[in-house]
Amino acid sequence: MGVQAKNPFENDDIREDADGQPLDEAYDGGLEGPILTEIDHVAIAVTDLDAAIDDYRETFGATVDHRETVESDGVEEALLKVAESYIQLLAPTNDDSPVAKYLAKKGPGLHHIGYRVADCAAALEAVKAQGHRVIDEKPRPGSRGTTVAFIHPKSLHGVLIELVQE
Amino acid sequence: MGVQAKNPFENDDIREDADGQPLDEAYDGGLEGPILTEIDHVAIAVTDLDAAIDDYRETFGATVDHRETVESDGVEEALLKVAESYIQLLAPTNDDSPVAKYLAKKGPGLHHIGYRVADCAAALEAVKAQGHRVIDEKPRPGSRGTTVAFIHPKSLHGVLIELVQE
Repeated sequence: MGVQAKNPFENDDIREDADGQPLDEAYDGGLEGPILTEIDHVAIAVTDLDAAIDDYRETFGATVDHRETVESDGVEEALLKVAESYIQLLAPTNDDSPVAKYLAKKGPGLHHIGYRVADCAAALEAVKAQGHRVIDEKPRPGSRGTTVAFIHPKSLHGVLIELVQE
Repeated sequence: MGVQAKNPFENDDIREDADGQPLDEAYDGGLEGPILTEIDHVAIAVTDLDAAIDDYRETFGATVDHRETVESDGVEEALLKVAESYIQLLAPTNDDSPVAKYLAKKGPGLHHIGYRVADCAAALEAVKAQGHRVIDEKPRPGSRGTTVAFIHPKSLHGVLIELVQE
């Protein structure tokens, strides 16, 4: 990446972009109005997808709206609808999956949050223009036909954020 | 608690309540329709609340809808509205706060998820009827005038869940 990623926990004083402009002035990204239009999903890493689905159905009456294996990410996911958002239960399909490594290191639990955006490419550029470190330099296909991009957790207070365009 | 909490990661075969009834049959809780009506908030533990607020404003244009110190929980929180949900930025007000301990152990990041429910007491009873371990045996006041109760993370795949009645 051309722009050095800034970790606000390492240096809270950095409030400039790569050209030395204050971030407030540098911020535009070509976007108007709120960038995040909805919590698309909260993703929960689990070891046993079927057991988790059973637990959410038995406890909350929540049922699977969509289920998909994303081989490129090494995950199988189940989406449980809550109003306009989803609970995304996420299990690894192989030991090399990032989710498998997450589970081995941290155990099951909250993994990432997906925010719905109108334009993933524009939102990603706005995030990069702020000097944030990203995982995906360009949007890529996500599950259920979406277009997605991930922002690095080091960049925004330890939270792995996914931008989701439907 | 009278009912032994069940951790699905320790024993996936337990599908009965305390009286030996299958959980699917035992499930009622007196509730009809979906129990979780909205993702009320995703809570993010941060070390510096003002820096986090600045980052979310500069990056996403998200602004503070409500800010409150909850002394009984040892936290100061800022709520940023996203459609009908909130991003809840959460910072400890003292070193004994559970959020301070969380930050010391795990660092900043996703802390819990709050689901909106129509009736917190009824939802909590339904969760307890499923044999889940809870943190709050009875609903209690939350921020912005809500009524809340927490479910123990050991009970539902490592996720700390808050039931929120507005």
